[in-house]
Amino acid sequence: MFQRIAILGIGLIGGSIARAARALGLAQTIALYDADASVRGRCRELELGEICDKIEAAVSGADLIVLAVPVGAMGAAMQAAAPAIAEGAIVTDVGSVKGAVIDAVAASLPAHALFVPGHPLAGTEHSGPDAGFATLFKGRWHILTPLEDARPGYAAAIDKLEGFWRALGANVERMDPARHDVVLAVVSHLPHLIAFNIVAMAEDLESVTESEVVKYSASGFRDFTRIAASDPTMWRDVFLNNRDAVLEVLGRFSEDLAALQRAIRWGDGETLYDLFDRARRMRREVIEAGQDTPAPNWGREN
Amino acid sequence: MFQRIAILGIGLIGGSIARAARALGLAQTIALYDADASVRGRCRELELGEICDKIEAAVSGADLIVLAVPVGAMGAAMQAAAPAIAEGAIVTDVGSVKGAVIDAVAASLPAHALFVPGHPLAGTEHSGPDAGFATLFKGRWHILTPLEDARPGYAAAIDKLEGFWRALGANVERMDPARHDVVLAVVSHLPHLIAFNIVAMAEDLESVTESEVVKYSASGFRDFTRIAASDPTMWRDVFLNNRDAVLEVLGRFSEDLAALQRAIRWGDGETLYDLFDRARRMRREVIEAGQDTPAPNWGREN
Repeated sequence: MFQRIAILGIGLIGGSIARAARALGLAQTIALYDADASVRGRCRELELGEICDKIEAAVSGADLIVLAVPVGAMGAAMQAAAPAIAEGAIVTDVGSVKGAVIDAVAASLPAHALFVPGHPLAGTEHSGPDAGFATLFKGRWHILTPLEDARPGYAAAIDKLEGFWRALGANVERMDPARHDVVLAVVSHLPHLIAFNIVAMAEDLESVTESEVVKYSASGFRDFTRIAASDPTMWRDVFLNNRDAVLEVLGRFSEDLAALQRAIRWGDGETLYDLFDRARRMRREVIEAGQDTPAPNWGREN
Repeated sequence: MFQRIAILGIGLIGGSIARAARALGLAQTIALYDADASVRGRCRELELGEICDKIEAAVSGADLIVLAVPVGAMGAAMQAAAPAIAEGAIVTDVGSVKGAVIDAVAASLPAHALFVPGHPLAGTEHSGPDAGFATLFKGRWHILTPLEDARPGYAAAIDKLEGFWRALGANVERMDPARHDVVLAVVSHLPHLIAFNIVAMAEDLESVTESEVVKYSASGFRDFTRIAASDPTMWRDVFLNNRDAVLEVLGRFSEDLAALQRAIRWGDGETLYDLFDRARRMRREVIEAGQDTPAPNWGREN
């Protein structure tokens, strides 16, 4: 499908793309670069592909370049890669935010490259090159947010990239970048922010010790710790770069929480019941849509 | 271990106790009562034990009585059961709140009964008699909150009840009722409240449709829907009956969330990173304490 794929940034996502592309034979060469020398060393041990010590070496001659660095590092990665990018190469990214990444990448994108931004809705709470695996994208959504680009090669580049992600097992959707950022603020960014907040809060309460929180965490709290175990650099960048959408849904969340707080204070059982009952119905829809397992406790042993 | 166990309220917990006690031969007879005739009918089909149409019939002759109704119904169940309770019978409960339940039960508890309140930290997001299973309590905490009761039989009753829960596979701890209510507000009640709130909020946003939320829920949101699928009656009663402790930790949560909101608004990446990094460490402690699986995504298929 491609002659040479260059993956810049080798974490959970970059490492999984490398493994999957190699397993499926989607490129003759898979070149990888990471700014961290110890990560590059580990990737050589894992034999993830041709590990390059310079970003230009990885990018040179590539017909697909995947930016897989944290959202806040996309602009700098593009700037470093730009001089080596070949005529007609497809450039894409995997950032969880699209508007800010598009602006950052566009600033130094060569005019002869075809930039098709994207975001795979896939991951685990683990990070780093060891965390990746070839089936990570199977059955998951991949959202492409194509630009307004009237060049004849651009439509073909979108189609080719869509075919690449479908080959990795993903279901591909196309969406406007701004819409992507609002939708993701709701389904992903806000839930992560809340999980980080409650877990950090529990760590420095005065009334309950940290060891009590850990000991009895299975009664609800542990689910939040899984989400809050995600890579802190990646998430810092998400919140800094999708600020407006996150602040908007966070305002709504706080408003609704204040109403719940008031219902508890005044003993308004009807309001509580109605809201809890509505929330319960959403679970059924998520399961019917095939977005989660119906097994109780996700099939955890206990 | 017991001649006759009477279980009042046959949901996930009551049904699981019945199954486990029978499987382990912990009583000659297991008598069950539920206020809902259709639940009683279903329990007869499931052959969970001797299903009684009157609460007095279930309780009569029992040497262990387990109140397994929602927290808000404990007082009424005790009042109805009281006239039939035998001399020296052990009475316990499984309520998620201890202070309010102790007050409600004490109001009509016969002087000749031995009341040892308790709370199994076990459950799934499913509810009703079909959701129960015999191994639900295996490896989970059971918290007993004994009363100040100087009668000679009382200490023996605590030990016997502790033995019963250990036989069901639980690890038993003893705790002061007020402390229990604060600890559970942090590790269980607040996480559930937040999950209910975010899931209900997402259902009636103007900016993002419900079908988009469901479709892309795997990027974080779906984890909250599992917690929010828990029984609404049970949870309404928890919040109404542990009001003070819940309002206190909720106030703290909102305060910390406001600080995070401010860090996002002002682009304070350092504050965000430090907090996310702290939260991540808590996950490791939860896993080291054996309170959750280390498998990424809890071993869900995707």
